[in-house]
Amino acid sequence: MIKPLGERVVVKVSEQDMKTASGIVLPDTAKEKPQQGEVVAVGKGKILDSGALAPMDVKKGDTVLFAKYSGNEVKVDGVDYLIIRQSDILAIL
Amino acid sequence: MIKPLGERVVVKVSEQDMKTASGIVLPDTAKEKPQQGEVVAVGKGKILDSGALAPMDVKKGDTVLFAKYSGNEVKVDGVDYLIIRQSDILAIL
Amino acid sequence: MIKPLGERVVVKVSEQDMKTASGIVLPDTAKEKPQQGEVVAVGKGKILDSGALAPMDVKKGDTVLFAKYSGNEVKVDGVDYLIIRQSDILAIL
Amino acid sequence: MIKPLGERVVVKVSEQDMKTASGIVLPDTAKEKPQQGEVVAVGKGKILDSGALAPMDVKKGDTVLFAKYSGNEVKVDGVDYLIIRQSDILAIL
Amino acid sequence: MIKPLGERVVVKVSEQDMKTASGIVLPDTAKEKPQQGEVVAVGKGKILDSGALAPMDVKKGDTVLFAKYSGNEVKVDGVDYLIIRQSDILAIL
Amino acid sequence: MIKPLGERVVVKVSEQDMKTASGIVLPDTAKEKPQQGEVVAVGKGKILDSGALAPMDVKKGDTVLFAKYSGNEVKVDGVDYLIIRQSDILAIL
Amino acid sequence: MIKPLGERVVVKVSEQDMKTASGIVLPDTAKEKPQQGEVVAVGKGKILDSGALAPMDVKKGDTVLFAKYSGNEVKVDGVDYLIIRQSDILAIL
Repeated sequence: MIKPLGERVVVKVSEQDMKTASGIVLPDTAKEKPQQGEVVAVGKGKILDSGALAPMDVKKGDTVLFAKYSGNEVKVDGVDYLIIRQSDILAIL
Repeated sequence: MIKPLGERVVVKVSEQDMKTASGIVLPDTAKEKPQQGEVVAVGKGKILDSGALAPMDVKKGDTVLFAKYSGNEVKVDGVDYLIIRQSDILAIL
Repeated sequence: MIKPLGERVVVKVSEQDMKTASGIVLPDTAKEKPQQGEVVAVGKGKILDSGALAPMDVKKGDTVLFAKYSGNEVKVDGVDYLIIRQSDILAIL
Repeated sequence: MIKPLGERVVVKVSEQDMKTASGIVLPDTAKEKPQQGEVVAVGKGKILDSGALAPMDVKKGDTVLFAKYSGNEVKVDGVDYLIIRQSDILAIL
Repeated sequence: MIKPLGERVVVKVSEQDMKTASGIVLPDTAKEKPQQGEVVAVGKGKILDSGALAPMDVKKGDTVLFAKYSGNEVKVDGVDYLIIRQSDILAIL
Repeated sequence: MIKPLGERVVVKVSEQDMKTASGIVLPDTAKEKPQQGEVVAVGKGKILDSGALAPMDVKKGDTVLFAKYSGNEVKVDGVDYLIIRQSDILAIL
Repeated sequence: MIKPLGERVVVKVSEQDMKTASGIVLPDTAKEKPQQGEVVAVGKGKILDSGALAPMDVKKGDTVLFAKYSGNEVKVDGVDYLIIRQSDILAIL
């Protein structure tokens, strides 16, 4: 797996949030809600102005929630991932 | 419950502030006033440049006041929540 | 009374500055002058990057001066208040 | 006199810079030059990120020079004052 | 090889990401995906406000991923390179 | 002489850079080049976030170079000066 | 030679990068590539918020690469120089 730099995290985006429990795709406006995905790789953390390293709060395997349009999309071995900064992650599910 | 990251807080938004004591919905301009909600989950706090962790001032169960359009809306198990930064919370009621 | 967060302050805005000593309402342009109000609640203070807490300079009961359009309006028990950051307060009268 | 907060200063603006030595009012463009005034009250100073208080460089009685349109105008007991940040003061005359 | 300053890195951009495995050039929108390249030179690192030097996380020989339009293009001895800040590198492959 | 605040410097702008050695005034585009002047007064220096005072690098009598449109013009006793921040001074001649 | 202030550097811009090896001037778009020049004077360095002085990484005699339109042009004794901040220098050749 690719190694994200700094406080970046690699997330495999879940497609589930685009469907309701009954399998119907939500209309466009509903899609603006945050997306979820699984963390597959975690950077070492952000270096603070003091020189200290801020430890990461998310770890491999966590399911995380993040705002749409955060991060950069990247395809590795045919699979789509998102590389986002931890500061753009809203919560761990 | 989802675990918010950093200084983020999960709030269950109250619908009350859209009605007056006599149950009449306020006109649109009045709705621009701050909203209130109940804190259901609290992050660990913000890491300062010095490396220190700024402790959180709100705790689970607090009723908080925040400006409209703060934070990100998220639906968990069919219930709507708001994930906002503590710095966007105006006051504890 | 509500408890403001961080360096925020709750102010009960005075209507006096919209009238002259002889009771005549000033024209619109004159209303752009700073407003005054009474501090009714004070936050704990701002946490600095060093981790230190900057003590508050205003206290309950102070009459303060602030620029118009600072802060967020909020109605508590039918009374209008303003929640503003201390850094937006110009002076204590 | 009102007590300015932080690094703010209360200045009684002098009207002199709008007249030449011979009493003729300068044309509009000349008025864009910095204005002068007398310091009538001084704040405690700005709290730095380190928690230290940066001492004030101006004191009551100083005649100071500042750029036009700096600060907030305020009328106290019928007299016009300007509340400006020390960082907007250019020099002491 | 040229020596990049601060936290800058010299990268030899790979043209591969503009073709699929079967050799077909991807359409324009697909080209907006991050690009990859090989690190050929690394700066000493960024000097933090504390005076400390933040060590570099990438080293010569690493294959890195970065957002398109990052950095400055430069031609050395007829070969095209990109000089980018490490903070603009997303991940190491 | 007026006392500039913080890292500000008072400069008596030289008119020389608007003429060539042979006395011919340069065309308008050439006038966009930096201007020069003599330092006539120097502030105490800038207070850093650490509380330390950054000592000044220019001193009274230095001939300095600065970009056009830096600083604030001020007339003292009929003479035109410029009050500029040291950080806007490019070099000492 | 003039003494640049802070982290500024004086560079004698080389005209070479506007010609190919065979002497043909490159078209306009190619001219947007970084420019090169020789360092003729170096400032003392930038003062950090901690009060420490960040030592300079370039020295007199270095051939440096920088983005076009960086810095301020200045003519000294009939020769054109560029005064740029070290942070705008991309690399040492």
